Amino acid sequence: MTDRVAGLQARLQAAGMDAALLMQPRDVFYYAGTGQPCNLWVPAEGEAILFARRAVEWARKDSSLPRVIAASSLREMTAHLPPLCQGAVIGIEQDVLPAAIAERVARTFPGCRLASVSPIVLRQRLVKDEEEIAAIRAAALLWNEVHTAILETLRHGVTEASVAAEISRRLIAAGAGAQCYFRRWDASLPLGGVVAAGDNAWHISGHAFTVTGLGLGRNLPWGWSERAVAAGELVVADFGIHLKGYQADMARTYAVGPIRPEQLDLWERLQELHQVVIAAVRPGIPALHLYEVGLKAAADLGQADWFMGYGESKGRYIGHGLGLEMDEPPVIGPDSEQPLRPGMVITLEPKFIVPGVGAVMVEDDLLITDTGTEILGQVEARLFEP
Amino acid sequence: MTDRVAGLQARLQAAGMDAALLMQPRDVFYYAGTGQPCNLWVPAEGEAILFARRAVEWARKDSSLPRVIAASSLREMTAHLPPLCQGAVIGIEQDVLPAAIAERVARTFPGCRLASVSPIVLRQRLVKDEEEIAAIRAAALLWNEVHTAILETLRHGVTEASVAAEISRRLIAAGAGAQCYFRRWDASLPLGGVVAAGDNAWHISGHAFTVTGLGLGRNLPWGWSERAVAAGELVVADFGIHLKGYQADMARTYAVGPIRPEQLDLWERLQELHQVVIAAVRPGIPALHLYEVGLKAAADLGQADWFMGYGESKGRYIGHGLGLEMDEPPVIGPDSEQPLRPGMVITLEPKFIVPGVGAVMVEDDLLITDTGTEILGQVEARLFEP
Repeated sequence: MTDRVAGLQARLQAAGMDAALLMQPRDVFYYAGTGQPCNLWVPAEGEAILFARRAVEWARKDSSLPRVIAASSLREMTAHLPPLCQGAVIGIEQDVLPAAIAERVARTFPGCRLASVSPIVLRQRLVKDEEEIAAIRAAALLWNEVHTAILETLRHGVTEASVAAEISRRLIAAGAGAQCYFRRWDASLPLGGVVAAGDNAWHISGHAFTVTGLGLGRNLPWGWSERAVAAGELVVADFGIHLKGYQADMARTYAVGPIRPEQLDLWERLQELHQVVIAAVRPGIPALHLYEVGLKAAADLGQADWFMGYGESKGRYIGHGLGLEMDEPPVIGPDSEQPLRPGMVITLEPKFIVPGVGAVMVEDDLLITDTGTEILGQVEARLFEP
Repeated sequence: MTDRVAGLQARLQAAGMDAALLMQPRDVFYYAGTGQPCNLWVPAEGEAILFARRAVEWARKDSSLPRVIAASSLREMTAHLPPLCQGAVIGIEQDVLPAAIAERVARTFPGCRLASVSPIVLRQRLVKDEEEIAAIRAAALLWNEVHTAILETLRHGVTEASVAAEISRRLIAAGAGAQCYFRRWDASLPLGGVVAAGDNAWHISGHAFTVTGLGLGRNLPWGWSERAVAAGELVVADFGIHLKGYQADMARTYAVGPIRPEQLDLWERLQELHQVVIAAVRPGIPALHLYEVGLKAAADLGQADWFMGYGESKGRYIGHGLGLEMDEPPVIGPDSEQPLRPGMVITLEPKFIVPGVGAVMVEDDLLITDTGTEILGQVEARLFEP
């Protein structure tokens, strides 16, 4: 991880920043290897210092950085820092750091200017190393547990919540964390999971442009609900998995028979589209190309109106990056000029959502390789009838 | 909920603020009754407006406020607001709102001054109404599911994670949300739950001054682990429950026998202390009084060194408020002069943590009544041997 710190330092220099002060748990973990509450100081040149706010010995044992100092406050921290020039630029995580803490940082470093370091950090996190890829692969393999739980429980008459309960039991017993990490401050995806049956799959909550489900009430209006699944319904299961810090994000569609031919047809067209998009994945292309391929395939298949939703809840994307967080860049949509690079991990999650018929969705996590791509999960992409 | 808005308006006037702009999901839910992504504008005088960023019809259906307008951006919102005077003060949630969004608000309202409205909101949320008390009571009753799951699974040789898996299954099947809400931006309690056995219960992670457990790895260093429970160990289970927006937070201690007399003795003293503190709860006293009663009881029982932890990880508190969030004020410690008022819900969570012996903890949620207190949960407070 000293390589990661060196990489950040090069980026800070290129951006004209004098130092970064990182406080968000995932960013600190990425560079320093600990989940204990710490402030990480990375000067553009010189030695990084990990300031442990509490549990100092624990942080020292975990940390990949040689210099770990106890400092419960920002003020205490500054005593250990060399003086900064007037006008020095300090990068902080403005996208997630609460305004009150950012103000405290500003008061701690009078005469300095604060800038946003998150884009730099997230750009560095785009390409995963071997260890990270192994971690995401292991998380994606755990989707087998989700699938098994669904095959065992999904029947006419059971509630979405009871299916989700068995999924959660299996995931936690297998070592998954009980919550997925998001970067967005107000994200509240329940355990990273949606189970949405029948019309619940085409009522789209405002929190995401995807199959959101109805959720458990006005306070949590997405995710599974207490509605029972009925015969003849398509059921979308979209579950994030958190394993040892890394996230996987996959979805499959299930049918509680008997389903109508148009429902099966919808799935088959989605499968065609999914294969066309996956075949287009290769290093060097801008991410937006995958969205365009998806759009064109949807039009060719006569499904343009339902691709990624409909009407006002239609999403203009087909996937996103993931890793330490579920919502890493790039959003793979019309504006993403980010070229795909070997080592990036993305998810592709095409769906057709047709009011009155149902929703079909498939989602796979893909590693970009030197020559193309590799699917990280193992659950077959077909319409399952439990 | 129009009463709540009127209450906020009176508080804004008293604080010299001209308006509040609320964006945090729980605050918006408290005043407007919807969990959809919205910005809530509450002028010190005049009509509050709920601006729905997406899912406008859904927000309109949920909302308790008459005026709901679609506005996907701050800029769009301002078109619907009366002009503000130069120097007007707008209250925002500086404790949770990311710095980048606070800056966007500042640019949207040039000539205005931003102030922190969160203390005002949290003070209003201190006293719960009938509906909120019923919701917290229902959440606390769900702790029966946690207890049942533990009695069914906890044995010599099972892992902490497998106990947590069954707890999670039961909670989700019973309608609980899969995550508890915290206000702190960097809180990451797994599903609000800790299962900590033996020495895992006296190794305290830096994220809280309580029994934290070891967690699942360096990235998530608290909560249950994959360690197997051994014979002769005390096991602390501390689980938050989220039901329909409201949180409960309870803990019990279990013994996987045979335990030693000193372990049973430790529990019995804790029970004595717990009863003494509960007996002291009544409206009008400052919250800090309960901490002082706890401190004195611990000293009287010869357990001062172990009360609320030991050494550097000793906490200086005995409980906290809860409701829409798990970490609501007051922190019941030496500095809390907040008087207890009928309708407040607090949790008391005394513990003794003795390295080499084990940890014992009991936690109950209490409603402050006109004459004293009422315990909201139903699980007996004794040392269970499953």
